[in-house]
Amino acid sequence: MQFLDAINFSFPLLASTTEAADSSMVVAAVLLSLVVIYFASKVGGELSNRIGLPPVLGELVGGVVVGVSVLHLLVFPEGGADSSSSLIMAFLQTTAGLSPEAAPQVFAAQSEVISVLSELGVIILLFEIGLESNLKDLMAVGIQAAIVAVVGVVVPFAAGTVGLMTLFGVSAVPAIFAGAALTATSIGITSKVLAELGKLNSKEGQIILGAAVIDDVLGIIVLAVVASLAKDGVVDVGKVIYLIISATAFLLGAIVLGNVFNKTFVAIANQLKTRGELVIPAFIFAFAMSYLASIIQLEAILGAFAAGLVLEETDKRKELQKQVIPIADLMVPIFFVAVGAKTDLAVLNPAIPSNREGLIMAIFLITVAIIGKVITGLSVFGQPQINRLAIGVGMIPRGEVGLVFAGVGAASGALSKPLGAAIIMMVIITTFLAPPLLRFVFPESSKVGTESEQLIQD
Amino acid sequence: MQFLDAINFSFPLLASTTEAADSSMVVAAVLLSLVVIYFASKVGGELSNRIGLPPVLGELVGGVVVGVSVLHLLVFPEGGADSSSSLIMAFLQTTAGLSPEAAPQVFAAQSEVISVLSELGVIILLFEIGLESNLKDLMAVGIQAAIVAVVGVVVPFAAGTVGLMTLFGVSAVPAIFAGAALTATSIGITSKVLAELGKLNSKEGQIILGAAVIDDVLGIIVLAVVASLAKDGVVDVGKVIYLIISATAFLLGAIVLGNVFNKTFVAIANQLKTRGELVIPAFIFAFAMSYLASIIQLEAILGAFAAGLVLEETDKRKELQKQVIPIADLMVPIFFVAVGAKTDLAVLNPAIPSNREGLIMAIFLITVAIIGKVITGLSVFGQPQINRLAIGVGMIPRGEVGLVFAGVGAASGALSKPLGAAIIMMVIITTFLAPPLLRFVFPESSKVGTESEQLIQD
Repeated sequence: MQFLDAINFSFPLLASTTEAADSSMVVAAVLLSLVVIYFASKVGGELSNRIGLPPVLGELVGGVVVGVSVLHLLVFPEGGADSSSSLIMAFLQTTAGLSPEAAPQVFAAQSEVISVLSELGVIILLFEIGLESNLKDLMAVGIQAAIVAVVGVVVPFAAGTVGLMTLFGVSAVPAIFAGAALTATSIGITSKVLAELGKLNSKEGQIILGAAVIDDVLGIIVLAVVASLAKDGVVDVGKVIYLIISATAFLLGAIVLGNVFNKTFVAIANQLKTRGELVIPAFIFAFAMSYLASIIQLEAILGAFAAGLVLEETDKRKELQKQVIPIADLMVPIFFVAVGAKTDLAVLNPAIPSNREGLIMAIFLITVAIIGKVITGLSVFGQPQINRLAIGVGMIPRGEVGLVFAGVGAASGALSKPLGAAIIMMVIITTFLAPPLLRFVFPESSKVGTESEQLIQD
Repeated sequence: MQFLDAINFSFPLLASTTEAADSSMVVAAVLLSLVVIYFASKVGGELSNRIGLPPVLGELVGGVVVGVSVLHLLVFPEGGADSSSSLIMAFLQTTAGLSPEAAPQVFAAQSEVISVLSELGVIILLFEIGLESNLKDLMAVGIQAAIVAVVGVVVPFAAGTVGLMTLFGVSAVPAIFAGAALTATSIGITSKVLAELGKLNSKEGQIILGAAVIDDVLGIIVLAVVASLAKDGVVDVGKVIYLIISATAFLLGAIVLGNVFNKTFVAIANQLKTRGELVIPAFIFAFAMSYLASIIQLEAILGAFAAGLVLEETDKRKELQKQVIPIADLMVPIFFVAVGAKTDLAVLNPAIPSNREGLIMAIFLITVAIIGKVITGLSVFGQPQINRLAIGVGMIPRGEVGLVFAGVGAASGALSKPLGAAIIMMVIITTFLAPPLLRFVFPESSKVGTESEQLIQD
């Protein structure tokens, strides 16, 4: 095998054979992982669709099946797994002659690559969602969205924190942490389900999307507050002010500059004569905005969403939407399957004693998480015809943001193990519950999508 | 900055903050690298196109400009670079608060991810080329292609080896190594240029493509022979036989099974109702074939090419071709820019004394590389109308395969530094010379492409 390992298409330029060996094995491992991911996403998505549920739920469940909870095909070092617990590594050792000594290194590299691909997947998803959303429609429901966002942050936060302190005797800092974890909506899951239901451009969809974006920003600010609280007991006011200003400046700046950049973008794309004349400038813009958002301490996905919104205003919209579809088809499932694969259902197992205390707290947190957001939906005013229940339900999934809170809390030592596990359970249940609930509150009969929605959902 | 570093969309599940910090920085580094890559590819490709040369040459040159030779934006550890020489890392330290201590780890991860993305890029390129090629047309020129391939391996190998031994007094093993490096054609560069010229489906294009595929297989066998020669002075006959059998079995097996799988593929795709119903099964097949090819010691790109050929036979061909275009537009430039970025022009600098001996040998190798393949073109028989010069020129670029020889040779200690540098120079010159030469020998006036070629070249 040794000589082939040296065949390495990454231009090794006199690299040592060992390095080259890894590189060829890493590519093989990534190829195999992608085959597993696509297989899980398609089988899961199709089955979910057949029983009338959003495909993305099936992709998440497909991820759980191939992930750390069941088959161990796709496992990640963050979950505590090592190369010996990865079935893909075992398969590579059997079929491709990967040596047991080289396996940990190949495993680490493959996990890194798949993790980055999954993050590129959610960035591309939000770019596509931005391309499908209309800035004016979003602004028209701006006040409702802002109120939904604020109520949706305050109610679960207050109910969660106070409840944990009074009912469970949790002390203030961990209770505040858990309360904070109840605030932010998972923009990725919610927007994907809305698109699949053909509801992205309904008034409810626009309010949910707008509120989820604002929620995400609020969540980042809340995290800054609780993280500094947990660290030294005081709030870093400077950081909070910086975040508020930079977030506002970024979102407003993107919209204002977007109006100017619009025409420049079309002019540039019209000048280009070689392949990728539209898609490459569009992705330069999307990735640059994602980078910008991430370095000013926002999230990369907000930058991609803003880039999509700006390009939606151009004449190239339709053509670009069409070209982004196959790219998203290939990249987005990596995100959802990876989310499922990283979900460790072991925290739900009541046979493990330490889980039991967590389970009881989790039931409380889940109740607050669901009721808190449903109440939020009722706060929408001045829209007599609107489906308030759908708006509340649309805000339920906590997804990745809630896990960030659990991660930061555990790392800072503020959260006890049961409470940390309870937060993770809350995230899992709300994430997996939201797609079927949303499907239920948006009856199919009223399904009327725009052309672009038809494209995105098909 | 610390708290933001913890915001990590890869579901950290109670990961330590340090791990999470890397993950968020790695994504930022990858986003920035992709912006640089796309910018270089588009500026280079457009400029090249304006002066009448194939865009891919501009992408290669764009890569050289942003790479290790000039701007140091995109550098790779294989070239001996470390994080302190990467301008992207310096930029991240300035703009994103990356700490100097964390930089080496982020640099390594970013390089790994970009390298794998570039390999996925060339895999997707060959999948697309397979989708645009017709198996029957390829088989029709099979005998010519096989003869071109064999002559194109034997002539440069013999001339190079004998020349180095007699003219330069190089001893047998290193001379054989350098001769072997002259054999294999770079299928990626040649096929991309042919597609850009709209010549992929011309008879010349089909012979070049077929010969390049056979060449690639022959190159792998030659490498096995010379690598075992260099290692212990004898040829591992068992390995050579294994390679010949497995390569033949793989290519024939793919074609035969492909006829059966065709219908299964269409039946499956017709059953699927959720997004990506065509593109996901197609990529499962392409990546699985790539994996299979790589583990039986062939190359991943041959598997992707075979998968494309098989799917070209289905009714879904047109639709799939259309959907693969934007995906290829986004992925393929990563490969060519990375190839350019990894090309270290310092080996061409005659001011460095050790380069001078190499330069003289390089001139000899380049002459043999070009004349050897042009003569090969003349060996085409029974096709009075054919452009023999174009076929020879189409086989000139050595690209990545030649570098593999240089890498293996240097690692085994068989090659002296000047001879190793001479091989790299030969690869650089033939790679960069082939696109303009091909453009020249295929006059534009006779340009007639099929519809699918129009798609691929536009």
